[in-house]
Amino acid sequence: MPTNKLWDKGIPLDEEIEDFTVGEDYILDMKLVKYDCIASIAHAKMLGKMGILKEAEVNKLVNELNNIKELSEEGKFTISKKQEDVHTAIENMLTEALGELGGKIHTGRSRNDQVLTALRLYYKDNIAECISLSKQYIVALHSFSSNYGGIVLPGYTHTRKAMPSSIRLWSGALIDSMQDNITLLEATLLLVDQSPLGTGAGYGVPIKLDRNMTAKELGFAKVQENPIYVQLSRGKFESTILHVLTQIMLDMNRAATDLIIFSMPELGYFELPDKFTTGSSIMPQKKNPDVLELLRAKYHLVVSYEMQVKGISGNLLTGYNRDMQLTKKPVMEGFEVTEQSLKVAARLLGGLKVNKDKAKKGLTSDVYATDEAYRLVKNGISFRDAYKTVSKKYTKSN
Amino acid sequence: MPTNKLWDKGIPLDEEIEDFTVGEDYILDMKLVKYDCIASIAHAKMLGKMGILKEAEVNKLVNELNNIKELSEEGKFTISKKQEDVHTAIENMLTEALGELGGKIHTGRSRNDQVLTALRLYYKDNIAECISLSKQYIVALHSFSSNYGGIVLPGYTHTRKAMPSSIRLWSGALIDSMQDNITLLEATLLLVDQSPLGTGAGYGVPIKLDRNMTAKELGFAKVQENPIYVQLSRGKFESTILHVLTQIMLDMNRAATDLIIFSMPELGYFELPDKFTTGSSIMPQKKNPDVLELLRAKYHLVVSYEMQVKGISGNLLTGYNRDMQLTKKPVMEGFEVTEQSLKVAARLLGGLKVNKDKAKKGLTSDVYATDEAYRLVKNGISFRDAYKTVSKKYTKSN
Amino acid sequence: MPTNKLWDKGIPLDEEIEDFTVGEDYILDMKLVKYDCIASIAHAKMLGKMGILKEAEVNKLVNELNNIKELSEEGKFTISKKQEDVHTAIENMLTEALGELGGKIHTGRSRNDQVLTALRLYYKDNIAECISLSKQYIVALHSFSSNYGGIVLPGYTHTRKAMPSSIRLWSGALIDSMQDNITLLEATLLLVDQSPLGTGAGYGVPIKLDRNMTAKELGFAKVQENPIYVQLSRGKFESTILHVLTQIMLDMNRAATDLIIFSMPELGYFELPDKFTTGSSIMPQKKNPDVLELLRAKYHLVVSYEMQVKGISGNLLTGYNRDMQLTKKPVMEGFEVTEQSLKVAARLLGGLKVNKDKAKKGLTSDVYATDEAYRLVKNGISFRDAYKTVSKKYTKSN
Amino acid sequence: MPTNKLWDKGIPLDEEIEDFTVGEDYILDMKLVKYDCIASIAHAKMLGKMGILKEAEVNKLVNELNNIKELSEEGKFTISKKQEDVHTAIENMLTEALGELGGKIHTGRSRNDQVLTALRLYYKDNIAECISLSKQYIVALHSFSSNYGGIVLPGYTHTRKAMPSSIRLWSGALIDSMQDNITLLEATLLLVDQSPLGTGAGYGVPIKLDRNMTAKELGFAKVQENPIYVQLSRGKFESTILHVLTQIMLDMNRAATDLIIFSMPELGYFELPDKFTTGSSIMPQKKNPDVLELLRAKYHLVVSYEMQVKGISGNLLTGYNRDMQLTKKPVMEGFEVTEQSLKVAARLLGGLKVNKDKAKKGLTSDVYATDEAYRLVKNGISFRDAYKTVSKKYTKSN
Repeated sequence: MPTNKLWDKGIPLDEEIEDFTVGEDYILDMKLVKYDCIASIAHAKMLGKMGILKEAEVNKLVNELNNIKELSEEGKFTISKKQEDVHTAIENMLTEALGELGGKIHTGRSRNDQVLTALRLYYKDNIAECISLSKQYIVALHSFSSNYGGIVLPGYTHTRKAMPSSIRLWSGALIDSMQDNITLLEATLLLVDQSPLGTGAGYGVPIKLDRNMTAKELGFAKVQENPIYVQLSRGKFESTILHVLTQIMLDMNRAATDLIIFSMPELGYFELPDKFTTGSSIMPQKKNPDVLELLRAKYHLVVSYEMQVKGISGNLLTGYNRDMQLTKKPVMEGFEVTEQSLKVAARLLGGLKVNKDKAKKGLTSDVYATDEAYRLVKNGISFRDAYKTVSKKYTKSN
Repeated sequence: MPTNKLWDKGIPLDEEIEDFTVGEDYILDMKLVKYDCIASIAHAKMLGKMGILKEAEVNKLVNELNNIKELSEEGKFTISKKQEDVHTAIENMLTEALGELGGKIHTGRSRNDQVLTALRLYYKDNIAECISLSKQYIVALHSFSSNYGGIVLPGYTHTRKAMPSSIRLWSGALIDSMQDNITLLEATLLLVDQSPLGTGAGYGVPIKLDRNMTAKELGFAKVQENPIYVQLSRGKFESTILHVLTQIMLDMNRAATDLIIFSMPELGYFELPDKFTTGSSIMPQKKNPDVLELLRAKYHLVVSYEMQVKGISGNLLTGYNRDMQLTKKPVMEGFEVTEQSLKVAARLLGGLKVNKDKAKKGLTSDVYATDEAYRLVKNGISFRDAYKTVSKKYTKSN
Repeated sequence: MPTNKLWDKGIPLDEEIEDFTVGEDYILDMKLVKYDCIASIAHAKMLGKMGILKEAEVNKLVNELNNIKELSEEGKFTISKKQEDVHTAIENMLTEALGELGGKIHTGRSRNDQVLTALRLYYKDNIAECISLSKQYIVALHSFSSNYGGIVLPGYTHTRKAMPSSIRLWSGALIDSMQDNITLLEATLLLVDQSPLGTGAGYGVPIKLDRNMTAKELGFAKVQENPIYVQLSRGKFESTILHVLTQIMLDMNRAATDLIIFSMPELGYFELPDKFTTGSSIMPQKKNPDVLELLRAKYHLVVSYEMQVKGISGNLLTGYNRDMQLTKKPVMEGFEVTEQSLKVAARLLGGLKVNKDKAKKGLTSDVYATDEAYRLVKNGISFRDAYKTVSKKYTKSN
Repeated sequence: MPTNKLWDKGIPLDEEIEDFTVGEDYILDMKLVKYDCIASIAHAKMLGKMGILKEAEVNKLVNELNNIKELSEEGKFTISKKQEDVHTAIENMLTEALGELGGKIHTGRSRNDQVLTALRLYYKDNIAECISLSKQYIVALHSFSSNYGGIVLPGYTHTRKAMPSSIRLWSGALIDSMQDNITLLEATLLLVDQSPLGTGAGYGVPIKLDRNMTAKELGFAKVQENPIYVQLSRGKFESTILHVLTQIMLDMNRAATDLIIFSMPELGYFELPDKFTTGSSIMPQKKNPDVLELLRAKYHLVVSYEMQVKGISGNLLTGYNRDMQLTKKPVMEGFEVTEQSLKVAARLLGGLKVNKDKAKKGLTSDVYATDEAYRLVKNGISFRDAYKTVSKKYTKSN
């Protein structure tokens, strides 16, 4: 398998150093094969239009890139550590198949704008996937609410009973919150939806390219004009994506916290079916809400990914810096964690039960203290006095 | 000065504990006096409409609240530590002036929705201020670019000369990036622009209120219907605001890093006027770019504020928790730091100079290596071969 | 009041820029007056020994510095914003009192090593204070344990009843954990206990100083020899201090979480006296554990301070950078929050009660399932089989 | 291959849920096989001593566990996803080889203390490895300093020339800082060096065990007595380890930042050999310091791992929570990143060169301004006046 790096000058790189610089790119990049092929196809067509490649050349490149894309979909495409990344792997394969023509695909392009183009396409797909999964989660909440919505149970503040609440109110809150997350996802999509292709290494390229054509071909809403901004926006877009993912995860963290506490047998408002719980290796009676605990914990994971990107992005001179390479993994892991969590949470809602009896039992008289005060208000007493009257009932000296 | 807390039941609180729980609220809340008055006025009018207060009562309350607002604008309103927060301070003052009527303002309201309403109004104002200051920063960049835009200087990647760049390109990148920040600010404004007033402590109130009326009166785009979501969104909205502020600060961090390095006498592309530099107490020759260093550092400050909110918000049971009180300070400080930084950065751009000679001197032949390679491409050589030919010129064995 | 900055060259600094660079130093530095006086006294004596100052001069300086120290202890010393920091304020006062002699104190010193010396002394005092308060917290736990230690209550895993536990076991865990924190505090003290005085701006000073003398005079365990390391260690020492503080806060976060949940009336194992709870402005029955919630939340505060320092410290060129100035506040706030929290937690333990009846009621049969399995093991059945036998009792189909 | 989970009760777990809960444990745990075997051997021997297992049984178990350990060292041991983790995989293998006896190894043990024991042994080994690699890095610095130490070059503050420095001073600072890191590593080792084995699920086990024996057998310095603290210390120990790793990484971040800037051709004090640089796919002249950039960036990676653990650990009820499972990966990755970085940095120092001519050329007259002022001081002028005299030379009006 050929392994000529795109920047190879014939000087051998120190082996250990190479390991260090390649890192996990050759693994992570497996997710980008499809997108790099699509972007390369658009670039080839554009080079054809500009007269830099002949029509026959374009066709050959496009065919071969489609081949690679198919191979990848069948799980037959691999990137070796020596090849370092998807971009080298694909160009090597093109050159093997098409000879010198393979090398021409890189005309008017740098790895910098190539990487970003593939990543943006990947981001767009995954943001869309998050929107779709968020909607499915909302559907699951609606369905849960239609089953149990009418059940009244105590609402809590400060982890103490406060006032009457209901399953409908609780589910509705989660729905509204996820709805706002979708709004944020859509705003982020708009941000990300700018084509970086054609900006070279961050200072343009010395030949004329039709950037509008590639942007359109790839389905980008617009061209990101300024090549320096293209580079500056790396880290920015990534951390905005991750911020929004933390918001989705926070919703699930809060819902999971509710379910963990409200399904304690001591309260028992919610019940988790056995197939959603795990046991202990020493305590035979245990049915543990591991799934919920992991949903809760994974919020912090995604928060730390966001921090990772924000830490890496600061105090750097304008223009591409290799540091930025490390922002790829946290975003990919962020999407993976969030998408899996949304799926699991929706599935969980399908099995979740509300214990009507326990909910009713929970509605002790103190839950109605505010109603009691307002009844006094309706009888003409000022709220402050009504409050003091009722509060006395609940104050024992200790 | 009366200091009856809104939840006072006549049991003395441990002094040291009280200090601990009040924290800095009584200081921070000085920024909220205006907003709490405005919100209380809307609430009073609505209570009037619902027949809970008489017209004369409403008028008295509105007058007194306007008085307090004016006092505050004149710097004459104070909140004592004993009063704990702005809400108690205002209600105490109302009661002092109007007797029992002062206590009626809290009918149909909890401190929970009251705090959130004041905060939302404060957020809206400050987001608007950030948008305005961002635009002024863009104006400063345009003006800087119109003075020096034509100057060509080396563009860097990996902190190494890469290809020719220009002041216009550099300024343009900062402008486009700030433009995207404004888009994010506007998206955040939409999120925040929901009226929480009328949701009580998080489970509604047992009397009928006209939430649309107060929302409209206060200029909110819509009513945030679900009372549980109102509470859940605390922390969410705050961290979204702070995320966007980190993006503004990141832009300034990156610009400051450029200016610090590019104004090193060894490079000298940029020059900072003496009145923007500070000296050393031991080294007489020093002119240090402290302003730029602080702009750089303050990015990390705001990132940590965002983390603070995200840390506090996780693993909590639904419904208000006192933990949330601590999210007030990071947002306030976040706005303060960002607004001041934008002002300072714009001011700095006004004094910043570009050294044309140094820029020219920086344009050594290696900066044009890519152009050289593309000249060979135009003569029919494949890019890969052209690259290898040119790269040989810059490879010395060592 | 004279306001000549130590690096003043007669060029006016832009007003707004000055505000930005001074920041809150003039407020924060009030905590450093004492330490800067002590350090300056040691420095003056050393200059005397080296023959740079005459004995009479040294005496005058020492007297005046002692005066300033006393003034500060009486709350009569102030730092104006114009003076920027404590170092300028003190030198200005010396010059006012002693004329030209005041200016001589800065011989062989830079603000860089001066700031660090004052900070290190301040750190040492506060680490010692944290150790002392941690020990008091341990005393409070011992006292609590001696009152209630014998009470058996359910131990939880996964927020589910697991096996029998006891107040003694619970208190003991908190004690052991705090003991390990003290070990960490002591290790940190060793790190911090190095004298930076005499390293100038980070590259030494061009005259001979007796660094051992000042180190000894100030009670430092050793001289921090390398002047570049003195600067590099800023940020390092600060973040190590803050890390240890987060560990103390984590212990309290976990204890607070336990108390919040275990004092829910639904479980009721612990009881918080009324004077440690607060009420709601709308719900008359509420007694909220605000103190515990704030203890819980403040962990995240200190974590974010640590992150602040770690964010600021990265990607900087060796040698002092103004960015480092911003590490002062997070450490100071970190100490303040931690010390206050330790005091409040110890005080709280004094009032905390255990409800013996509720604890007993909580010991349902499932808590003894493991004991049950081990009884079977003692009768010769393998643990795996015993486990399966007992687990069947607790498995209902659902 | 048998896949009976240690807590299996015969109820099938939802497939998707299972994927979610298992996560990457079955991959990460490959690093723990050795340690789990060692710990199980000690546990078996102790059960023998207590009369719970017969001598022959102990011998069989020890032999088989040694077999597994060897298999693992030869890379022949695998953990299937179904088996979930190393503990199930090993017990399954024991049962397959030894029948019912395999199940007896879990007597008096829970997965909770089993996991912690394996992890602690793994931590101890890796902390020792970090100490060893830190010392090798120090050796590399000494060797670098002995080659180039005498070269004088400008020292910088505020990214501006300040005073003369030298390679010896610079290397010495990095050495001293790494020495302090070693001190911190050793303090952390003491903390971690406590045996958790024998504490069961966090509330002890209902049979008598000899915890001192297993602790001694495994080389732990002491027994961690309190079983609740054993669980509480998870997260604490992990974040302390990660904090110390961030300090090592910070040192390399700062050194890398120096080298990136000081090896810019515009300054040129340092030179990186070609085999340590990488090229650009578009710019033929480029030799980029990717290795240094990645060293710089990886600091932020480890900082985010620390945050991950600190985020996950907060707001949890005492006793094991599944959340804690997620702290395994960040620590493992933290060790991996740090160890690899130390190796690469030491290797890099071997190839690093100092350009004597460029260093000399950098020593412009302003670098000596402080010396100049002190020469005036020696002639009897006060430092403040000398400072002002010299500073005038470097002040041009602009």
